[in-house]
Amino acid sequence: MAPKLQGIFTPNIVPLDGRGEINEAELRRYTDWLIDRGVHGLYPNGSTGEFTRFTPEERRRIIAIMADQTRGRVPVLAGAAEANVRETISACEYYHDLGVRAVAIVSPFYYKLSPQAVYAYFKEIGDHSPVDVTLYNIPMFASPIDVPTVQRLSEECERVVAIKDSSGDLPHMIRMIQAVRPNRPEFSFLTGWDAALMPMILIGCDGGTNATSGVVPEITRKLYDLTKAYRIDEARELQYKLLTLFDKMILSADFPEGFRAALRLRGFNTGAGRQPFSDIQQMQLETLSNALACLMADEGYADQPIGGCPIGGEKIDPDQVGRIVKGVLAELKQRGLS
Amino acid sequence: MAPKLQGIFTPNIVPLDGRGEINEAELRRYTDWLIDRGVHGLYPNGSTGEFTRFTPEERRRIIAIMADQTRGRVPVLAGAAEANVRETISACEYYHDLGVRAVAIVSPFYYKLSPQAVYAYFKEIGDHSPVDVTLYNIPMFASPIDVPTVQRLSEECERVVAIKDSSGDLPHMIRMIQAVRPNRPEFSFLTGWDAALMPMILIGCDGGTNATSGVVPEITRKLYDLTKAYRIDEARELQYKLLTLFDKMILSADFPEGFRAALRLRGFNTGAGRQPFSDIQQMQLETLSNALACLMADEGYADQPIGGCPIGGEKIDPDQVGRIVKGVLAELKQRGLS
Amino acid sequence: MAPKLQGIFTPNIVPLDGRGEINEAELRRYTDWLIDRGVHGLYPNGSTGEFTRFTPEERRRIIAIMADQTRGRVPVLAGAAEANVRETISACEYYHDLGVRAVAIVSPFYYKLSPQAVYAYFKEIGDHSPVDVTLYNIPMFASPIDVPTVQRLSEECERVVAIKDSSGDLPHMIRMIQAVRPNRPEFSFLTGWDAALMPMILIGCDGGTNATSGVVPEITRKLYDLTKAYRIDEARELQYKLLTLFDKMILSADFPEGFRAALRLRGFNTGAGRQPFSDIQQMQLETLSNALACLMADEGYADQPIGGCPIGGEKIDPDQVGRIVKGVLAELKQRGLS
Amino acid sequence: MAPKLQGIFTPNIVPLDGRGEINEAELRRYTDWLIDRGVHGLYPNGSTGEFTRFTPEERRRIIAIMADQTRGRVPVLAGAAEANVRETISACEYYHDLGVRAVAIVSPFYYKLSPQAVYAYFKEIGDHSPVDVTLYNIPMFASPIDVPTVQRLSEECERVVAIKDSSGDLPHMIRMIQAVRPNRPEFSFLTGWDAALMPMILIGCDGGTNATSGVVPEITRKLYDLTKAYRIDEARELQYKLLTLFDKMILSADFPEGFRAALRLRGFNTGAGRQPFSDIQQMQLETLSNALACLMADEGYADQPIGGCPIGGEKIDPDQVGRIVKGVLAELKQRGLS
Repeated sequence: MAPKLQGIFTPNIVPLDGRGEINEAELRRYTDWLIDRGVHGLYPNGSTGEFTRFTPEERRRIIAIMADQTRGRVPVLAGAAEANVRETISACEYYHDLGVRAVAIVSPFYYKLSPQAVYAYFKEIGDHSPVDVTLYNIPMFASPIDVPTVQRLSEECERVVAIKDSSGDLPHMIRMIQAVRPNRPEFSFLTGWDAALMPMILIGCDGGTNATSGVVPEITRKLYDLTKAYRIDEARELQYKLLTLFDKMILSADFPEGFRAALRLRGFNTGAGRQPFSDIQQMQLETLSNALACLMADEGYADQPIGGCPIGGEKIDPDQVGRIVKGVLAELKQRGLS
Repeated sequence: MAPKLQGIFTPNIVPLDGRGEINEAELRRYTDWLIDRGVHGLYPNGSTGEFTRFTPEERRRIIAIMADQTRGRVPVLAGAAEANVRETISACEYYHDLGVRAVAIVSPFYYKLSPQAVYAYFKEIGDHSPVDVTLYNIPMFASPIDVPTVQRLSEECERVVAIKDSSGDLPHMIRMIQAVRPNRPEFSFLTGWDAALMPMILIGCDGGTNATSGVVPEITRKLYDLTKAYRIDEARELQYKLLTLFDKMILSADFPEGFRAALRLRGFNTGAGRQPFSDIQQMQLETLSNALACLMADEGYADQPIGGCPIGGEKIDPDQVGRIVKGVLAELKQRGLS
Repeated sequence: MAPKLQGIFTPNIVPLDGRGEINEAELRRYTDWLIDRGVHGLYPNGSTGEFTRFTPEERRRIIAIMADQTRGRVPVLAGAAEANVRETISACEYYHDLGVRAVAIVSPFYYKLSPQAVYAYFKEIGDHSPVDVTLYNIPMFASPIDVPTVQRLSEECERVVAIKDSSGDLPHMIRMIQAVRPNRPEFSFLTGWDAALMPMILIGCDGGTNATSGVVPEITRKLYDLTKAYRIDEARELQYKLLTLFDKMILSADFPEGFRAALRLRGFNTGAGRQPFSDIQQMQLETLSNALACLMADEGYADQPIGGCPIGGEKIDPDQVGRIVKGVLAELKQRGLS
Repeated sequence: MAPKLQGIFTPNIVPLDGRGEINEAELRRYTDWLIDRGVHGLYPNGSTGEFTRFTPEERRRIIAIMADQTRGRVPVLAGAAEANVRETISACEYYHDLGVRAVAIVSPFYYKLSPQAVYAYFKEIGDHSPVDVTLYNIPMFASPIDVPTVQRLSEECERVVAIKDSSGDLPHMIRMIQAVRPNRPEFSFLTGWDAALMPMILIGCDGGTNATSGVVPEITRKLYDLTKAYRIDEARELQYKLLTLFDKMILSADFPEGFRAALRLRGFNTGAGRQPFSDIQQMQLETLSNALACLMADEGYADQPIGGCPIGGEKIDPDQVGRIVKGVLAELKQRGLS
């Protein structure tokens, strides 16, 4: 039997070139960089990887490139959700042939499905996939997978070996573990919510699929190690720092633009994303990028922006305020209010 | 200039054959049937049409079949949302070549985007589409399109000619009309919420894209006509009946299974949907189908189910209760509770 | 049997004096003013009347003053919700002795109760109140009252004669009417959502308890009359105007401060409310008051503010923008950000 | 300076007699029992204590009885929220004279207030209370208190010494600690969400106000001690058990009836609550009480119910299923469906 999924799996951004196409060379370089910095596994075609913004063919190509580049150094967890069950199973077969450790399949989205329908969807996939399946629960974006559904699938489908849960709900994670672990001790529980990585591990999770590990893999990995070693005080301090960085990336721009901006600061040519930007967003992104540079410079992972960083916390410099005010005025104008 | 979009546009279910493939013959027959029963237009690849469950190639084929079958008898509003802006514009070009009246594009989904990002998305499409564009706001499933965004797009993009709003929020509709109509009198406002069709028309909407018109086009069309003629008392009575039917279809099964079941009662070979069913769902669907048959028989649009219908309202017969209890017990068992 | 509740009932603000006590003289003057302007009834101790911010003794005094001042000219609907069933029934008895037409009782709040608990609460009140009872459903603030609960209470409790629903949900209103009216034709359905008053009346409501009628009773009453007469085009136009005013009052300040500011413009000495204001709120209120004055001046119900009103819509003058920016900067400073 | 608030504070149920009045003798006995079992403090007039269902006079009497009975053995945190700022400050003065350690004041409820209004409310209280103030954030029931508001109040009001947060949101707790602790190291952070007590302590909380400590103070206290000692594996196991019990009490009945039922199993004559029960609720409560007895018997804190407990987890016995089905049928009948 394959070893249990555990540790930090990185849901990676896909670098694009100037024409918006997959930048294969940079994706390969990024893959190596992540493995070199100690992440336990890779998780392409996740939400951070903007799987919905690629075509079915592109999704396959992303996995093919990364599986090839990884050459078994770390396990690959391949996001495999397609338009319907048949297409998804076909993708599972393809990824299986590429040698991935497992696939991860998000619950059906757009339509909000009942627990019965979510069960039926995963049951058919679990019964026909040739490769191990990780359920992916992200109620913010997709139909929720409730505890009885996870339990039933874990009992009926040997191929279903893990759940990635991005709800950030601690008690919910405990309820799932209590419902599944007695019968399936090798079933793995991964959290997708970096903001609670340390407490999630402490209450029983096996690891995480964390977007921060795509930009500061050193910190996310160290937080995981400190927590697993019950070095609570050090872990807490690092969790606080990670939360500050995570909040900045996730709250200050449309997801996953904050992560893309941070990755650029690590020296990668990410290109622009496929979701277009308004002028105001472009301006906000520059402010965000400077703020991220300061946070990351504090930890030694980026240079300070030109003009330097504020001393002693989140003081906004006059220029930033000026830009904010300018942005507000621009928006008022666009809306015909000034 | 093309005439304003108005009246009832039918978001149609796509009949599938036994292998889950598009049933072209039945789709053509259904197209004719709808036109014959007086709907003002057709709206393939909408939410009712389960656009997310088809592949990009299938979505194009659906429009091609229906545009061909329609041969200009009524305008076609083609759902054109694809994975990203470039793919969406490419679909717009394809549908334009097929001669559709306009496309309808749902706001980006899965990710919940900011108003700025929603604006940027539609702005790029509005600037590059060769065919008229209808914005599609369905906040239950996709990123909301707020009033200032609709206003700005209506001012900046001549190609943006309408909004379909499925929120069912009357004051929101009024706010949009107030913001847009003075500058763009030909801009069209369509409601996707059958439950409020009459009051939406009365407060200023131009029409609707209503799933009920796919199963009882006679009623939806008549309700539209009575309302436009300000025959308030008659319209109200019909709106009540339509709501009862709509509620039954939308609340008693995962969307759009209730509509598919009802369409079967009108004599169409819909086939099963692509989202699999659990045993309990299958059982519930039979109960629903009988209830729908009774409601539709009252209006003369279906035969009563074998065993007849309850007299005087929604009495459940003992068999139904038995089935419900059996279903509850089955679920308890599956969850290890009995 | 007492006549059915219908028409516009005004949920009134309570004027306070400089020490924050009930300003009895002004409350009496306001009562007369409302009756003179044609509202069909009065509804003290509603949400607009801030019933939760008064003591039990003050709530009784408000009703006593207004019932005395009204002297039977119009029916009084007295908000009677107290801390628990026993206290509420005691209040019902007191208001009954004062001669009110009916009481209105909001569903239990703070705790979010199940439908069964909401039923049990109203059942006990309905069985023991000496005066007719109006259920008050406002799911934004209190435990929702669902359709089966309304139906069951209407069947079991003769004293329950009406529901005031502030959800603004048209189909929900239709569902209630369908469930109750066949058995209780005299049961009354009142909407508390001014933004949809016209369509609510058209789909079958008997009237409304509308906060706008406390500041522009002329408009709300006229909208009701036009709608009841099926003068659809005129009614729609007036509904649009009312919505603009309503939105400004309800969205631009913590409820019900926008209504209090508007009432001040009608010449009433409302005093300050009991919920304290921050400096930023105070500044925002002045901006709001000017905007309201302009809207009301357009209809002839207030003088233009000093400095005049913008021409052709909602242009914000530079001073206003300046104040907004100043407010933003002040907030940044308070939060340690500049 | 008074010592920092830390440890487990019990939000206690108030025993009532047969007429629904406060049962003073039982309340005094309960107070002693809690102190004897090691809770660090008492928290009367919290949400568990149903403060909204008592009159202002009764709320004062509850604190008076408990403060008198406690005689300084443990600190008392007195729930002090009243109808408005003036009444609340008056209650603070009264409780101060009774010698309570601090008051806890829930954010304004019913109306959903803006952050500015929440700030203004607590600012006025913080400036005028003679006794230390704990902010009480419970966004499920009341206006949320956001992080900048907590920070500002902590900086401006020396009297504001703590926050009780019942959101259960770990990252939110971290954000508050990061914003406040550097300037106010003695400020206390208490969690009201028993389901996450262990991880909340580990990420930096000082304690909790936990309803489970009112029924199994032994467990809650032990969980706190194990966690503070970083005995992670033992703490996790106990957190799992506490969650199971907590879920049963909070999810199976209208709050706080599950806690009342459990307290009865500990030998207290709680009486019935003031919120009336329907027949179905009464039946459900008996099922719940048996389930709680089994869970508590496992830990040695209650006798097994007559008829015994299921072996190996949550198997429902046939009688229970029978009762559930009977309940379903009764409800169908009441709703006219059978």
